[in-house]
Amino acid sequence: MRFAKGHGTGNDFVILPDPDGQLDPSADLVARLCDRRFGVGGDGVLRVVRTKAARTEVDGGQEAPEWFMDYRNADGSVAEMCGNGVRVFVRYLLDYGLASGPELAVATRAGLRRVREEADGQLTVDMGGAQVTGEGSVELGGQRLDGLAISVGNPHLACVTDRPLREIDISAPRLLAADSPAGGVNVEIVRITGEQEAEMRVHERGSGVTLSCGTGTVAAAVAAAVSAGDWQAGRERPWTVHVPGGTLAVTPSVTASLLTGPAEIVARGELTSAWLTRASERAVMA
Amino acid sequence: MRFAKGHGTGNDFVILPDPDGQLDPSADLVARLCDRRFGVGGDGVLRVVRTKAARTEVDGGQEAPEWFMDYRNADGSVAEMCGNGVRVFVRYLLDYGLASGPELAVATRAGLRRVREEADGQLTVDMGGAQVTGEGSVELGGQRLDGLAISVGNPHLACVTDRPLREIDISAPRLLAADSPAGGVNVEIVRITGEQEAEMRVHERGSGVTLSCGTGTVAAAVAAAVSAGDWQAGRERPWTVHVPGGTLAVTPSVTASLLTGPAEIVARGELTSAWLTRASERAVMA
Repeated sequence: MRFAKGHGTGNDFVILPDPDGQLDPSADLVARLCDRRFGVGGDGVLRVVRTKAARTEVDGGQEAPEWFMDYRNADGSVAEMCGNGVRVFVRYLLDYGLASGPELAVATRAGLRRVREEADGQLTVDMGGAQVTGEGSVELGGQRLDGLAISVGNPHLACVTDRPLREIDISAPRLLAADSPAGGVNVEIVRITGEQEAEMRVHERGSGVTLSCGTGTVAAAVAAAVSAGDWQAGRERPWTVHVPGGTLAVTPSVTASLLTGPAEIVARGELTSAWLTRASERAVMA
Repeated sequence: MRFAKGHGTGNDFVILPDPDGQLDPSADLVARLCDRRFGVGGDGVLRVVRTKAARTEVDGGQEAPEWFMDYRNADGSVAEMCGNGVRVFVRYLLDYGLASGPELAVATRAGLRRVREEADGQLTVDMGGAQVTGEGSVELGGQRLDGLAISVGNPHLACVTDRPLREIDISAPRLLAADSPAGGVNVEIVRITGEQEAEMRVHERGSGVTLSCGTGTVAAAVAAAVSAGDWQAGRERPWTVHVPGGTLAVTPSVTASLLTGPAEIVARGELTSAWLTRASERAVMA
């Protein structure tokens, strides 16, 4: 079984090339692949499959893109979209001649996503519209922070603060607002550091503190744009957002938020048959 | 640049095949390879190089083995030996026809190591002699444990206890004994669970809590053998030692401790030239 490994601002993925849809990786195999010590290691799996061969409902209609990003979380569960993952997915398509740029569309479980390769090799993804849905507050390391509830397809609470972000313990956020959705939200702390520039730390629901989160940077940019008064005025301006894994550019929008960032393929190769055999034996025993 | 990835009881390594000694991986490149999100990911690098091509002093004399295990820690520093690493190293040699079993020797910076492949594919390594060098004590999660100072080439403090190991916080051991060597020791907590059977948790100096530690299991077996009275009587008997990453068999000895355990190669492939180029650019910038 062939694989590749890649990352976007430190959010890393095991890529499974499967153009003709011959693989049907079980949740167990995905979890074993993502295991950082007993497997290849990654935050998730990106299966690269032609849309017409994907055994799933893909909402693309007449426009259905050639490639479907079958994204799975590290625990094996099916996921919809990932702003860092889709850049890595497109980087893989472009690097190995499976698609040509600079503009292309990718099918995902959250619908079609348009991606553009910039002159410097970075990739811009249309992340769809973002909405401010309300307010909320969270307790972080014993202190309360207030923020905005923001939907980027998935739910966020983005809290703008003047405090140095490293002084804030985001390892165990406790939501204080009563109207938080079931399953929790992603929590971002955001500090505006300059003209259209901010830094962000994120706690992802289900994953904990991570180096980067694509939808989280969009939510952070929305919160920053609200602070600047741009959001209320309908002005769409780009923000530079620094995350622990690197730097992204975000233009938040109610219709089509744009996220620009790097993606690179680290390596590619083959899983050994010995490992695959033992992985399936363990699955049977488990 | 070709690579493979393998592990022994969850202690995982990036393997760099370099038979003719043409690579001279910098500390920076090793650290980037071992980075679990921006690189391949591993606890260390095993460079597979012919002894005569290795640019290092290898103590082998007339008997110098064909292959030298050039072992590096994840931070890029040079290391001497690793009981889990040498099994992975030999598994790689055997799986890819670079050596034939069932018995072979490997050159390491700690000297020659003899390895034997067992009928079930597990590998037995002669880890050299172990010595009880004294006593010591350590504070773990606010409680004091007494143990034995044991040398397995590197220094250990192995503490036998009746308490369930999961109740003991080994994340931040504080040595209470004044005669601990500079650079600290590896700390093991050991519970005897049956006839010649024990479980062990380890805090490795410089690495923290890990899933497994080859020399640590030898030290644990020595401490268990002392508890059983075998060590003092000069009886060498095998112990089954359970660690979080799996199970190992250890026969501790003052002359030639034997460590038996599994090793598997997960995958192999090539690093992309794009990643290697960016890695070297980053190294120049750093």
